[in-house]
Amino acid sequence: MSLIVQKFGGSSVANPSRIKNVAGRVNAYRKKGHRLVVVVSALGDTTDELLKLAAQLTQKPPGRELDVLMSAGEQISIALLAMALKELGCEAVSFTGWQVGIRTSSSHTRARIHHINPNRILEALKEKKVVIVAGFQGINSCNDITTLGRGGSDLTAVALAKALEADACEIYTDVEGIFTTDPRLVKNARKIKKISYEEMLELASSGAQVMQSRSIEVAGKYDIPLHVRSSFKKNEGTWIVKEAKLMEDVLIRGVSVNKNEAKISVRGVPNRPGIAAGIFKTLADKSINVDMIIQNIGKSAANTDISFTVPKGDAHSAVRALEAVSRKIGAKEILMDPHIAKISVVGIGMRSHAGVAAAMFETLGKNKVNIEMISTSEIKISCVVKQADAEKAVRLLHDKFKLGK
Amino acid sequence: MSLIVQKFGGSSVANPSRIKNVAGRVNAYRKKGHRLVVVVSALGDTTDELLKLAAQLTQKPPGRELDVLMSAGEQISIALLAMALKELGCEAVSFTGWQVGIRTSSSHTRARIHHINPNRILEALKEKKVVIVAGFQGINSCNDITTLGRGGSDLTAVALAKALEADACEIYTDVEGIFTTDPRLVKNARKIKKISYEEMLELASSGAQVMQSRSIEVAGKYDIPLHVRSSFKKNEGTWIVKEAKLMEDVLIRGVSVNKNEAKISVRGVPNRPGIAAGIFKTLADKSINVDMIIQNIGKSAANTDISFTVPKGDAHSAVRALEAVSRKIGAKEILMDPHIAKISVVGIGMRSHAGVAAAMFETLGKNKVNIEMISTSEIKISCVVKQADAEKAVRLLHDKFKLGK
Repeated sequence: MSLIVQKFGGSSVANPSRIKNVAGRVNAYRKKGHRLVVVVSALGDTTDELLKLAAQLTQKPPGRELDVLMSAGEQISIALLAMALKELGCEAVSFTGWQVGIRTSSSHTRARIHHINPNRILEALKEKKVVIVAGFQGINSCNDITTLGRGGSDLTAVALAKALEADACEIYTDVEGIFTTDPRLVKNARKIKKISYEEMLELASSGAQVMQSRSIEVAGKYDIPLHVRSSFKKNEGTWIVKEAKLMEDVLIRGVSVNKNEAKISVRGVPNRPGIAAGIFKTLADKSINVDMIIQNIGKSAANTDISFTVPKGDAHSAVRALEAVSRKIGAKEILMDPHIAKISVVGIGMRSHAGVAAAMFETLGKNKVNIEMISTSEIKISCVVKQADAEKAVRLLHDKFKLGK
Repeated sequence: MSLIVQKFGGSSVANPSRIKNVAGRVNAYRKKGHRLVVVVSALGDTTDELLKLAAQLTQKPPGRELDVLMSAGEQISIALLAMALKELGCEAVSFTGWQVGIRTSSSHTRARIHHINPNRILEALKEKKVVIVAGFQGINSCNDITTLGRGGSDLTAVALAKALEADACEIYTDVEGIFTTDPRLVKNARKIKKISYEEMLELASSGAQVMQSRSIEVAGKYDIPLHVRSSFKKNEGTWIVKEAKLMEDVLIRGVSVNKNEAKISVRGVPNRPGIAAGIFKTLADKSINVDMIIQNIGKSAANTDISFTVPKGDAHSAVRALEAVSRKIGAKEILMDPHIAKISVVGIGMRSHAGVAAAMFETLGKNKVNIEMISTSEIKISCVVKQADAEKAVRLLHDKFKLGK
């Protein structure tokens, strides 16, 4: 009898009829004899609606109170799911974060899980109950309510799987699994059966937002098999596992596209030590996440151009923050372009096979897709292209690397 | 510097603009130097909306999960009020029931408060913060969330006032205080300045539903002055205090009317010991609250008629439950009449002044209002009349006892 942690996102429990659907699936698993711990997010748009209420009261809601507010959302869904299960004759019990001792760091709205006390859950499992746990929330050392940031329910599920030594952690979502690329862009995109944590992390950070990155990291660290699958269809989804457990050795696992970044270039920067540090410290002070960073020699050897990408929403405040620095260091100009897309190919096969980069650049070049920036990791190559070229680029690369099978 | 507990009901915090209004009032008090603990209910119809969601999932929601569900409502309002106060520059901190150790009995949906640990609140008050506490909720000895039943936030406020040894407990509501009778029925109804706990209890149980009865009982037991007043107007409301503290000695404090009961008569019951017990045990087993009970000799001395009132909503199930018993004991028939009203006059002056009952019956009789049932307590006389006569009866009695001044 396996112990399985199942996580259902907000869209899976958006309304009573969907909650019934989830209860039906959970109950079917229960009947097979599995021991189940079910993590749920807040109903559909609840979190956004609560934030809207807060926004009518203040522009800067204090983090502590935001967490009290938002965590009410999951409290509602755990109670409703427990009711729906009992209605099916399935014994179930719901717990909030504090009730199962999910202890976190103290930083509100983006706390990290430090520890989970599994006793109360284990007791309930022993009583043959399905245990339902509120995702996204915990408490810090002052017993104040904390939340784990966007996608935090994934993290709750993975951390519970670790604390309970579960056999697997299933992430139910509104897609059928991880695809070789976005199926809305490429018709013959294929569902991936198995993928390694590392590949999934690279795909997630390059735009395939099925799961929160930190959860994949934690699952990888503790070797917890993740199964990403549909809340609405019965067939298997995608397993995220240790590299060693992958049967097939493919070169490229998938192609992702990210249209949520903007490119900023600081041009004509004097080529002196410490200049780059000055620029990126300014952005870090504003809590702006910088992704790709490229430094090129500019037109004159004494000057250099520094380009990087930031989330589109932060682009204007990044430019404003840089204007002062730019004057101080004597840079020539700051350019910002929001109409870009980052295309990435990801695969652990790259480690042992040369030539992926060459094939990627050649494919794009031959087809008149101009590459504006390049960055690489051990198992990923990303190119920034014009946003208008994004879909064409994805289709070309998906074909080139034979991902449609 | 007094320590005051203030309670705001759901209609006082129904939406962001009303929450701002409450924050403004609290802040004004804070500026006067008072130490404040504010208890809030769930926003407007939140509780009903949550119950509607539950009803879509099951006809018999388990009490434990109902409490998890409903308590989310107050968690939302405490966070929002804390935000609104901080926006005004007033330091505030919100606490759920479990965070301030509101320990209750284990009976879900109608738990009783056993104990409150005041430490965390006292600490926050020391830090000059306004403390906001979720009404209506607590935890039992298993750390399961419990709720206190309808009007439970009043009880939270009173229990906190007791635990913190507060100087007063203010109940903010959508009426301006307690009136000599319902101002919608009688134009010259007057706001009462001071009333005793006992009088308020009798008025509450006879239909003036401004405050939950149990809270008045507890406040009386511990001699906590209650101030019932409007959330929207500044003027003083009604103080509920110890009888000894009442200055004026009036005969009748108020007239109340209750149209929410139905009369049931079991006629032709054999006059044997144990028969009445059989009838009322049947109703108790169905958790039907019986109010007035009258037993008369019937047409023959061997028979008796037993009449009583029950909440209108329970009338049909009471009749059904009694049908079997009635056959067993050989009663003649069961009659049910939902078109009645209970009119009560209440006043501690009755204790020392005879003749109130006579004056009441005479007034009604002279004006052709037929009295169907009578019951009395030390400080209350209630008559059941036809519902069509209710308003006329109230007006007559309000005049007779000169309550309009």
